[in-house]
Amino acid sequence: MVVNTQIIFSKVPTGYPVIGQDITVKKSEFDLDAPLKDGEFIVKNLVLSVDPYMRGKMRDASIPSYTPAYELNEPITGDTMRLVIKSKSSLYPEQSYVYSIGSFEEYTKLNEQEAKANGVVVRNDPKTTGIPISNYVGVLGMPGLTAYVGLYKIGEIKRGETIYISAAAGAVGQVAGQIAKAQGLRVVGSAGSDEKVAYLKEIGFDGAFNYKTQDIHDQLTELCPKGIDVYFENVGGKMLEIVLNHLNTFGRIIACGMVSQYNLTKPEKVGNLLNIVSKRIKFQGFIVYDYADLEPQFLADVTQMILDKKIKYRETHAEGIEKTPEALLDVLHGRNFGKQVVDVASV
Amino acid sequence: MVVNTQIIFSKVPTGYPVIGQDITVKKSEFDLDAPLKDGEFIVKNLVLSVDPYMRGKMRDASIPSYTPAYELNEPITGDTMRLVIKSKSSLYPEQSYVYSIGSFEEYTKLNEQEAKANGVVVRNDPKTTGIPISNYVGVLGMPGLTAYVGLYKIGEIKRGETIYISAAAGAVGQVAGQIAKAQGLRVVGSAGSDEKVAYLKEIGFDGAFNYKTQDIHDQLTELCPKGIDVYFENVGGKMLEIVLNHLNTFGRIIACGMVSQYNLTKPEKVGNLLNIVSKRIKFQGFIVYDYADLEPQFLADVTQMILDKKIKYRETHAEGIEKTPEALLDVLHGRNFGKQVVDVASV
Repeated sequence: MVVNTQIIFSKVPTGYPVIGQDITVKKSEFDLDAPLKDGEFIVKNLVLSVDPYMRGKMRDASIPSYTPAYELNEPITGDTMRLVIKSKSSLYPEQSYVYSIGSFEEYTKLNEQEAKANGVVVRNDPKTTGIPISNYVGVLGMPGLTAYVGLYKIGEIKRGETIYISAAAGAVGQVAGQIAKAQGLRVVGSAGSDEKVAYLKEIGFDGAFNYKTQDIHDQLTELCPKGIDVYFENVGGKMLEIVLNHLNTFGRIIACGMVSQYNLTKPEKVGNLLNIVSKRIKFQGFIVYDYADLEPQFLADVTQMILDKKIKYRETHAEGIEKTPEALLDVLHGRNFGKQVVDVASV
Repeated sequence: MVVNTQIIFSKVPTGYPVIGQDITVKKSEFDLDAPLKDGEFIVKNLVLSVDPYMRGKMRDASIPSYTPAYELNEPITGDTMRLVIKSKSSLYPEQSYVYSIGSFEEYTKLNEQEAKANGVVVRNDPKTTGIPISNYVGVLGMPGLTAYVGLYKIGEIKRGETIYISAAAGAVGQVAGQIAKAQGLRVVGSAGSDEKVAYLKEIGFDGAFNYKTQDIHDQLTELCPKGIDVYFENVGGKMLEIVLNHLNTFGRIIACGMVSQYNLTKPEKVGNLLNIVSKRIKFQGFIVYDYADLEPQFLADVTQMILDKKIKYRETHAEGIEKTPEALLDVLHGRNFGKQVVDVASV
């Protein structure tokens, strides 16, 4: 028997989740030595991804959304890289890395059928690329693919255009900015601290500003002198309202997220929507899972960019699965710097 | 010499335009007998189209927009059907009807080059179709093409889907509804009087309600039991906010206009935008002139539908060009019923 620490969804939060009340840490036992049936295998969690969308799943299950609500009193789920430590499955042999959405717990027993159905894929790439495993839930995982899909499928980016990215130092924003830069766009971003702004300039953003201490309208006027062609929207609210006035004719808004709104009991209303008609703007939401067919191309492109040092990727590591609730709160408050991950175990 | 009555843009309005102050009627003289140079021709206005977008042109010229501001102390412009009454142009021979955006005045002298550059086209179709000339600035003019482009290019309508149309008894809405119905969609509309609602049902809408006297949310719940796949957005503001909650996953908003906002000194802010992300909604503005290449197909399709009595088109006729300012105010207040036109002269 080993201890199996789990991160449990205990109560629907009002506003920001409260640790110890809405999200709790539970210790139970896991029998590593229990015999496996054919097709069964045991995975050990190596690294977890903590992302803003998770707040949307911490809701009453009766409220419909694109993604099912978390089940009360069960572990929350999110992107994971896990190691197969015991296996009676030929699809998922021992010592394979597997990538998928998974339960936030140290050990999980799976069977082949449900694993396949739930998109658990063997991803042994780190063994040959030498890229850190944590990158596979970030720049090479769902956040990276989100940036890639957003830019190409929704934003329809073109060389010479100007893109503005909010939450630009976050898990998605930093990848989006660097891909756009490599594609020949002018790239401007905002973030919530001077340290993050300095980082954005360091990784090649043409302009960056601190939206908490600087005037957003003035900064966009100065940094996007030809207006904004594409807005990578991660925050919503007041930011969106201001950006609408800076978008060019035929501008596109990649509606990726609105993190400023997730913890408000009453989301903000947004002005300046008349721009959508008068400037023929396309404002489009998307979910990365609708574009799974792009994943192989994305992995090939972005892996090569990382190996060529054309993409840098900042991560914040929380150490130990017990730190997951704090890490989630950090992300919802924007206190993380770069992609927030939780290191659960080493190989 | 004949009298040439003109409708002049005299002052930038605050809120609704004031007749006699912001829009005025001017009488001047026009010399029908002055000799024409080669390529010149004189047109007599037959019918004018009065549309909500015209309010957007009554602004200070220093404010940029997709459409130039009207020039102060010059005639306002809009869609017209005009008759060539004298001509030294082989492109625009005498007794041709011409369709284009034109000055709101009884007589205009044009030359071939500027007429071609400004999209003045010979449209003698009424001579063979027997369709009333006024239809050529409405169901067969810019409003009809707007409905057509909106449905096919922005709305991507599909058989079996539900479309909801605001301002459904207006110039664009009634065409959009009937085309969508012919394409096998469930069609629901709203309008601002019981008489208009009765008309919508008469022309084949599956459901219709009076947004001034009935609860919008309740009506949409009842009349769109499977949710809304496509919203043909003509009004903006509160209506848009409510519709966002009724849109289905992958819903589309055809952002055609926001007439409820045009005369507000401070446009309303809109809530519920989080739906755009969570439901992967596409909210897209467009201007009909970007799709001029669709016009031949549109004319062929919709002319046939009219001849086959598959489209009815309600018009409100103001008699005499002097009535144009009142007609515009009626449109901005939603007092018109169907397409508002002004009969200037008979053939």
